[in-house]
Amino acid sequence: MSNDSSSQIVTGLRDWIVKAPPGSRLPSTRALVAEHSASPVTVQKALRILAAQGLIDSRPGVGTFVRALRTAQPSDYGWQSAALRSPQFPARPVSTAMRSAPNDVIAFHSGYPDRELLPERLVRAALARASRGDAALSRPPAAGVPELQSWFAHELRTATPAGFAPPTPSDVVVVPGSQSGLSSVFRALAGGSQPVLMESPTYWGAILAASHAGADVVPVPSGPDGPDPVELARAFEETGARLFYAQPNYANPTGAQWSHQRGEEVLEIVRRHGAFLIEDDWAHDFGISTSAVPLAAREDSGHVIYLRSLTKSVSPAIRVAAVIVRGPARDRILTDRGAESMYVSGVMQAAALDTVTQPGWQTHLRALRHQLQSRRDLLAASLRQHAPQVHVAHVPHGGLNLWARLPDGTEVDRFVRECESAGVIIAAGSEWFPAEPAGPFVRLNYAGPNPGAFEEGARVLGSILGDRPNAR
Amino acid sequence: MSNDSSSQIVTGLRDWIVKAPPGSRLPSTRALVAEHSASPVTVQKALRILAAQGLIDSRPGVGTFVRALRTAQPSDYGWQSAALRSPQFPARPVSTAMRSAPNDVIAFHSGYPDRELLPERLVRAALARASRGDAALSRPPAAGVPELQSWFAHELRTATPAGFAPPTPSDVVVVPGSQSGLSSVFRALAGGSQPVLMESPTYWGAILAASHAGADVVPVPSGPDGPDPVELARAFEETGARLFYAQPNYANPTGAQWSHQRGEEVLEIVRRHGAFLIEDDWAHDFGISTSAVPLAAREDSGHVIYLRSLTKSVSPAIRVAAVIVRGPARDRILTDRGAESMYVSGVMQAAALDTVTQPGWQTHLRALRHQLQSRRDLLAASLRQHAPQVHVAHVPHGGLNLWARLPDGTEVDRFVRECESAGVIIAAGSEWFPAEPAGPFVRLNYAGPNPGAFEEGARVLGSILGDRPNAR
Repeated sequence: MSNDSSSQIVTGLRDWIVKAPPGSRLPSTRALVAEHSASPVTVQKALRILAAQGLIDSRPGVGTFVRALRTAQPSDYGWQSAALRSPQFPARPVSTAMRSAPNDVIAFHSGYPDRELLPERLVRAALARASRGDAALSRPPAAGVPELQSWFAHELRTATPAGFAPPTPSDVVVVPGSQSGLSSVFRALAGGSQPVLMESPTYWGAILAASHAGADVVPVPSGPDGPDPVELARAFEETGARLFYAQPNYANPTGAQWSHQRGEEVLEIVRRHGAFLIEDDWAHDFGISTSAVPLAAREDSGHVIYLRSLTKSVSPAIRVAAVIVRGPARDRILTDRGAESMYVSGVMQAAALDTVTQPGWQTHLRALRHQLQSRRDLLAASLRQHAPQVHVAHVPHGGLNLWARLPDGTEVDRFVRECESAGVIIAAGSEWFPAEPAGPFVRLNYAGPNPGAFEEGARVLGSILGDRPNAR
Repeated sequence: MSNDSSSQIVTGLRDWIVKAPPGSRLPSTRALVAEHSASPVTVQKALRILAAQGLIDSRPGVGTFVRALRTAQPSDYGWQSAALRSPQFPARPVSTAMRSAPNDVIAFHSGYPDRELLPERLVRAALARASRGDAALSRPPAAGVPELQSWFAHELRTATPAGFAPPTPSDVVVVPGSQSGLSSVFRALAGGSQPVLMESPTYWGAILAASHAGADVVPVPSGPDGPDPVELARAFEETGARLFYAQPNYANPTGAQWSHQRGEEVLEIVRRHGAFLIEDDWAHDFGISTSAVPLAAREDSGHVIYLRSLTKSVSPAIRVAAVIVRGPARDRILTDRGAESMYVSGVMQAAALDTVTQPGWQTHLRALRHQLQSRRDLLAASLRQHAPQVHVAHVPHGGLNLWARLPDGTEVDRFVRECESAGVIIAAGSEWFPAEPAGPFVRLNYAGPNPGAFEEGARVLGSILGDRPNAR
């Protein structure tokens, strides 16, 4: 946002302003420069921010004064209850994965990689170049910047075996993050209470997007090898669904990676039911001991709708993802994007493309693989040693999470609260289940800040579980 | 996007590659440097882009070669017709306002101001600063960056008369452009076929967003003074609607600005029906002979949902707008934003805030006012002189458009096509009507490129209309 020194001055002055009577004169710029050892430019910037916040008035040539706040009466918005009616979908609480956490806790909850895992130098250079280029002032086409469409198509093409038609750039719809992509896919293809099959457990954001689109979410049990083909076929038959949402590589939360064989079985079932597989390749850049091979690469008859995001691997500030989809389904999805937001900022697209086409990007991905491996192994070993009651059945070959089962009978929500009181934030597994959770699960993310504290975090989990009698 | 010289090399080489047999070796980097008088860095960048597009393979130490393209069979996606079913909403064609146009036409159609009307220097500097700041690598809160929320609240607060409670920063939800804001408002408050009253004519993007949200759009006639209060009250009573979408300042397309009196009448009707006014203040920064005074500033009981966008006045690349809404409606809208896209890029928010808090922003707005005035007056005068058949009943006090009526009986679509054949792009008025157009209208935008051609453009319109017998 603002550079750090002006933020500090803002914080300091805000405390002073709140206590001062309205009309009080602020110290002069010169005095503030001296007090904060900052440049006049920095002090002026802080004052502009405070003025924008309505806290002070600057009178040129006279001075800067604390603003008199209007006294407002408390408002009654009760009338809105009738106008708003009941919500169309049950509200889900905001996911734990989206919470910010103070610096002094041990954070196993986040859905985003820590800054040390991001290509900081590449991102900053890419944004700086974008600020000088044409993208800073122009409006790109609705489906995306052609060069970025080409890049996404090329990425999938490199995985396409001989004999399959690779996707073309025009099959690519650039979207502002994969959540927006999911929302559009579900709105465009499952609006009006149509059934959508989903692995259970699965990504909470996909459950949320499908519910908000008005779809009827139907859970299909899925484990470390992916969904059970028999259950999947049965669900298609029972519901008449035309959509199956899944994560064949490093599923969030379980870390599952489907075998080639399982992928073929699922594709066969999807084809047989004239349906779409929505393949969410969210962890494409997060392979550790294997690499992610998209199923979409070996299906060229339009049955796979493929999502690939750059937000998590490039930067949370670069909201860029792609939906790759062939046939009329593409038009249906593009129409929804047009109604929702018309186009994606060209600066975002330029910065994303710049980052991933630098030679440094491949270097970064190789280093990232090693960092994730160390972190995953450290957390898994720490749990084995200090919290053996936290059972990780499957150490994943990629992704950012361990999916762990607590002893039978553990009250997960209470456990999560107790961990937080002890300074460790974890996410209850229930968030990843479309319906009731299948057991007392938690998700532990190993991509957060300060891996040096993983061992201590594991110790806390172990001691809290040790304190409670096993309720079985 | 890419800098211009590498784009030129890409274009040149692509033509060469398409004609060359697969496996052909490209000229060496040194040869390309000489041929294009470009730096080795620029040539390397061009080669990376071509590699990303799948057109060439680089073999380090050996050379760069034209890639063998896989031969693909034509695919049949006919099976999707059954899976997709009929669309939920009738497809509207993409608006003329979103079309890009070649440089050699006279463009009266665009919805976006020409680059010469944008604060280019401020935007580039703001993006450059954002690339160095914390925003480039962090994830902001779901409702927006607090400083930007404060700025939006402050803007509305400066227009708030004594005795009214001003909005607070927490009433502000930052969204990635006003189209996204509209989509969320309609989805959150009018999903499930609920009626939404709209001025007729009105902004096509709002009609689109409401239709896609599943709302039932009910037109209320509106002219240069705003909607007829009697018709508005009747529409509320007939439909039981709880939502009225309107543009009280410089409405798109008519340019109407409501009087204080008319605003009070509308607010009174809205309150009496326990309803929301969705105030789209899209042209807040485009006042010419008056300024935009938001109705939202004089309503503090939660009946006005206020939208303010920065995309059009700052840059089409800065997708930032705000929805200011009090009471539980805010939570409903924020929940929809969470499901749709989780949060807005911090880089976009930082760059927007930086731009509008620079001293140069106010200077820019003053200059913009004069530029818009000249352009508006030039177009209006050119029409009077060279195309008197194009009747502009109301020259607006702000905004970007003239709304003009053609002679009765004119076939508008045919006229638009004939203009385009003669090198002038205009938009048929029908795009701005929720139902059938009330007459043969066109919208002429005076914020496009090259105002020097306005007179010639008017001459073309006049001569085409002169050629046809008046069909009355």
